[in-house]
Amino acid sequence: MTESGKKPAIVLLSGGLDSATVLACALREGGACHTLAFRYGQRHSLELEAASDLSRAMGAASHRTVDIDLSSLGGSSLTGHGEVPKGRSESEIGGGVPTTYVPARNTVFLSFALAWAEVLDASRIYIGVNAVDYSGYPDCRPEFIEAFERMANLATRIGTEGEGLQVVAPLQRLSKSEIIRLGTTLGVDYSRTRSCYDPASDGRPCLRCDSCQLRLAGFAGAGLVDPLLTRFGLA
Amino acid sequence: MTESGKKPAIVLLSGGLDSATVLACALREGGACHTLAFRYGQRHSLELEAASDLSRAMGAASHRTVDIDLSSLGGSSLTGHGEVPKGRSESEIGGGVPTTYVPARNTVFLSFALAWAEVLDASRIYIGVNAVDYSGYPDCRPEFIEAFERMANLATRIGTEGEGLQVVAPLQRLSKSEIIRLGTTLGVDYSRTRSCYDPASDGRPCLRCDSCQLRLAGFAGAGLVDPLLTRFGLA
Repeated sequence: MTESGKKPAIVLLSGGLDSATVLACALREGGACHTLAFRYGQRHSLELEAASDLSRAMGAASHRTVDIDLSSLGGSSLTGHGEVPKGRSESEIGGGVPTTYVPARNTVFLSFALAWAEVLDASRIYIGVNAVDYSGYPDCRPEFIEAFERMANLATRIGTEGEGLQVVAPLQRLSKSEIIRLGTTLGVDYSRTRSCYDPASDGRPCLRCDSCQLRLAGFAGAGLVDPLLTRFGLA
Repeated sequence: MTESGKKPAIVLLSGGLDSATVLACALREGGACHTLAFRYGQRHSLELEAASDLSRAMGAASHRTVDIDLSSLGGSSLTGHGEVPKGRSESEIGGGVPTTYVPARNTVFLSFALAWAEVLDASRIYIGVNAVDYSGYPDCRPEFIEAFERMANLATRIGTEGEGLQVVAPLQRLSKSEIIRLGTTLGVDYSRTRSCYDPASDGRPCLRCDSCQLRLAGFAGAGLVDPLLTRFGLA
């Protein structure tokens, strides 16, 4: 419990644009924010470095990177050696479950957040799922988040003995452009965020993978210039 | 899908008495059974060796041990350096949340099982929670298992596109003695299982920790001799 009277919060922070915006939302609510990232067999560590950097720069209370072993269970091009799809149209990106799907990823991530929430006696877990994602990923839909929250309250002391736990998804009904506008209002420095599935060794985004495409379209829709592109002289 | 027409199953197998009985139940139902154990900062590796040994000896289709990093989030004497409570009475063991509680452990374990179920297109996840446990651990109660199953079906392709996923807890309403009688009927070799929280280096159980006490009382109540005690000349 801090002076604000708010219990702490856990914020899932990937180092991407969405979760940086979520951290800004959580900080605005008050209470200490503890950020959590996962090393789960990603192809590169830029995202994880960005998560740690954002946590510090934005004023979170602590940051942890937890190693998890999803890759040993197989099943996704993001953790395996398959090709990352590139140059797909927005309708292709939105259609069906993409091959970059990591099985039950949000369930696994939220479970670790729940464990940490129990240890810290936190009352909120923040996650950056949103409307753009849940066209393809079942574990980004509002009904999944609600079912996880219900389960989480039955699973833990904080749920069964305390005042309960909320799973907060502040971006859930926002488009990418709306997220970028919200984060810009809250002062998020998007030049510190990473989105590309397949960046060059210096961190330069490929601008062709699904994630880069969505980011480009998002900034265009918001009428803003992506400061990451400015940083790499690509704007 | 095997010749029996049954989809595969995932079985959480800790190397203890309960989960060995659950594996026997799952094998009886037919379909390939894939067993899953976790290295999560336990004090000793005997349980994990027992899990791998049981999986092979009982005829499971495959076995995985996944490393997870709960200890980095703190919060329990089973993964930390606190004292394991010893010499407590059965009513003390049943009263309140014990200090050996690992935060959100079953949620984390079931989440990994869910990830693997998605990869293998499995239709059932088996877990050995039971009546003895759920006096103290919130994540052993039937309402938790039901809430996890509901969430799991919203989280995954197998739940949203297929015929759905069941979380099966065949021991849920059984006492320790009833579990031991059931397993004995199904041919479980309990000398291969491990229960002690604090065994000697040769694997000899301490007979004083909560887990040993429950096992002793269970075999006594079933009117059976624990073959593990026979093996160590303790019967």
